[in-house]
Amino acid sequence: MRNAKTLEYGFSNEEFEIRLKRAQELLYENKLDALLITIPSNIRYFTGIDTNFWESPTRPWFLVVPLSGRPIAIIPEIGEKLFSKTFLKDIYTWPSPNFNGDDISPLKSLLESLPSRFGAIGAELGKEMSIRMPVLDFGLLQNNFKFDIVDGASLIWALRTVKTFNEIKKIEKVAQIVGEVFDVLPTFISVDDSERDVAKKLKKEILIRGADNIPYLPVVSGKGGVSQIIGNPTHKLISSGDFLFIDTGATFDGYFCDFDRNFAIGQASDELKRTNEILWHATEEGIKNLVPGAMTKDIWKKINKKIEDFGFMVKGEGRYGHGVGLQLTEPPSISSFDNSIIQENMVLAIEPSIEYKPGKIIVHEENIFVSKDGPVLLTKRAPKELPLIS
Amino acid sequence: MRNAKTLEYGFSNEEFEIRLKRAQELLYENKLDALLITIPSNIRYFTGIDTNFWESPTRPWFLVVPLSGRPIAIIPEIGEKLFSKTFLKDIYTWPSPNFNGDDISPLKSLLESLPSRFGAIGAELGKEMSIRMPVLDFGLLQNNFKFDIVDGASLIWALRTVKTFNEIKKIEKVAQIVGEVFDVLPTFISVDDSERDVAKKLKKEILIRGADNIPYLPVVSGKGGVSQIIGNPTHKLISSGDFLFIDTGATFDGYFCDFDRNFAIGQASDELKRTNEILWHATEEGIKNLVPGAMTKDIWKKINKKIEDFGFMVKGEGRYGHGVGLQLTEPPSISSFDNSIIQENMVLAIEPSIEYKPGKIIVHEENIFVSKDGPVLLTKRAPKELPLIS
Repeated sequence: MRNAKTLEYGFSNEEFEIRLKRAQELLYENKLDALLITIPSNIRYFTGIDTNFWESPTRPWFLVVPLSGRPIAIIPEIGEKLFSKTFLKDIYTWPSPNFNGDDISPLKSLLESLPSRFGAIGAELGKEMSIRMPVLDFGLLQNNFKFDIVDGASLIWALRTVKTFNEIKKIEKVAQIVGEVFDVLPTFISVDDSERDVAKKLKKEILIRGADNIPYLPVVSGKGGVSQIIGNPTHKLISSGDFLFIDTGATFDGYFCDFDRNFAIGQASDELKRTNEILWHATEEGIKNLVPGAMTKDIWKKINKKIEDFGFMVKGEGRYGHGVGLQLTEPPSISSFDNSIIQENMVLAIEPSIEYKPGKIIVHEENIFVSKDGPVLLTKRAPKELPLIS
Repeated sequence: MRNAKTLEYGFSNEEFEIRLKRAQELLYENKLDALLITIPSNIRYFTGIDTNFWESPTRPWFLVVPLSGRPIAIIPEIGEKLFSKTFLKDIYTWPSPNFNGDDISPLKSLLESLPSRFGAIGAELGKEMSIRMPVLDFGLLQNNFKFDIVDGASLIWALRTVKTFNEIKKIEKVAQIVGEVFDVLPTFISVDDSERDVAKKLKKEILIRGADNIPYLPVVSGKGGVSQIIGNPTHKLISSGDFLFIDTGATFDGYFCDFDRNFAIGQASDELKRTNEILWHATEEGIKNLVPGAMTKDIWKKINKKIEDFGFMVKGEGRYGHGVGLQLTEPPSISSFDNSIIQENMVLAIEPSIEYKPGKIIVHEENIFVSKDGPVLLTKRAPKELPLIS
């Protein structure tokens, strides 16, 4: 798993063939004639397409994964050259946005031309997916259509949650890059930087060291603690006595790391130090239980018990982790109600949290690859003691 | 419009009240009892919420804009503190992801409690919108529901395409920042940088000068020209004789600029220089016709005529521009089939293109604010002559 520094971009065609083969096995098992794909991370999973043109909501992009043969792209003309560099053979284009307002007929015609063995197509209708096309167009597709359209989300997640070796290496690489930046963070931030200043310095360092993008980077600070962990940085100045929370979703070649770090500025209360250490142990408990065959709900319970053993009453059933990959968060959830089984080659974030006084929370987070021999840290483990920046 | 350098983040509550008032007027006109909002840019438009937590697909977020009164948030618990800082008064939360797998009942109950004057709710079903929730959940919402759910996309675009003064200032600010970076680009890139190196240096400079994010940054190079304009940068080295295309979608406080710049490395053919200049004139034609009352299709025709007057045969009906705002591209389209009327306070990209030999294209792009007195450039106009980097 080392040599992350010189890791290449992209994947071999063989890797896409392997992903396709697994998808087609699942299509058979689920009695589906094809998968209809519209979501950027799913298109990238099956083709390797590297673009951020998804920022433009104007045009839909379609990929069809048939029961046999390579995936078929039905895409706006503007994407033809880019798709022609992938392992795909069949690329159909139309001039989108279309002068007669019709961005669905080309897809519908293509799908109608597929053989129907089972009479059903899977689409991104369910769990943690939002189909990327107007609902009205989706209705036109379904209207008087040769196939039933049923949920394909669980099939897609069954594929994406179990990573290949090459995917794991990319997540490891970006986790290492961000880890190096956290190592030197105390040398480049200072009291009276605003949260936004800190975020910009971090982004700059993360880019210089080799990541491509930093789509997610909350920097949250507050006297003695923070009350939320998802907002973008504000103009607030970092000052002595602050608790500083930084979460990072950075990418290398499309793959995310997702882990946080916590700091005390100048000083920290004994309560905060102690809570931080308890959470460190809770995280340790989560990591060590990430073994093939474990159930997500049992891992949640073990983390919870560890927190309660230290005397905290846990409110609610908030999750303590999730998958990581082409998206910042992916299934499964490490939660009391998730019935997933941890599998070899999953990559997960263990992310326990404690509300140590009303409205004040601490969250720890590490990224782990599940090897057949057990958990392997992709992040450099946070120190047990809350780091102090003076 | 100056003083962009010291522009503040955020908007006043009064601004959100104005947006809300316009929305409610349109709700009455369209005989709708409420708008259901799920898309990040739409949520931000009505609340100012600044988060990138949307990168996590796990949880849906709902905002309801009723016929009277402030918008109502129905959101996962994890967002409560963040939403409590907005001008919203009613914030309902549920523990999402939910232990019984139900992320739709809280929204449905809230909507059912609204008075029904017209019996219909508008949602993000149509033009350039993809609803951000599982289609299966949307089906559950519609099932045995008190209201009809109809398309609200055109209503939302009617609001968002016409900017307030404060929105325009933010677009101007980020356009100026990126413009400054292009001014100094020749001093920090060099032959034998890869496209990725160029992109990283650009991102670093754009961040340092005050933008928040750079979600879109294709850097495309090729001997004598490029064949596509949407792919992310690759390992390809920039070398003498290359044509270099850079597009930029950077943000300040959530608002995008979207403009490109073209360069010749070391040398350029007379054909390329001449095509570049023709496109400059075509862009000029587009800009000067961006006046209140103009029709988008007429602007398209005028740009097209300008290109054809210079002796090019234009293939197809690709668009020559679009709106810009909280998303990289927004309606309207400057295209032969778009029937929009340019309105005061729209912000648009004028973006003509020429395929000057088979598979080789040039694209120019500028951002313009439509004042009552005519077009005002937000970008620093590209030079007429193709800039040479030696």
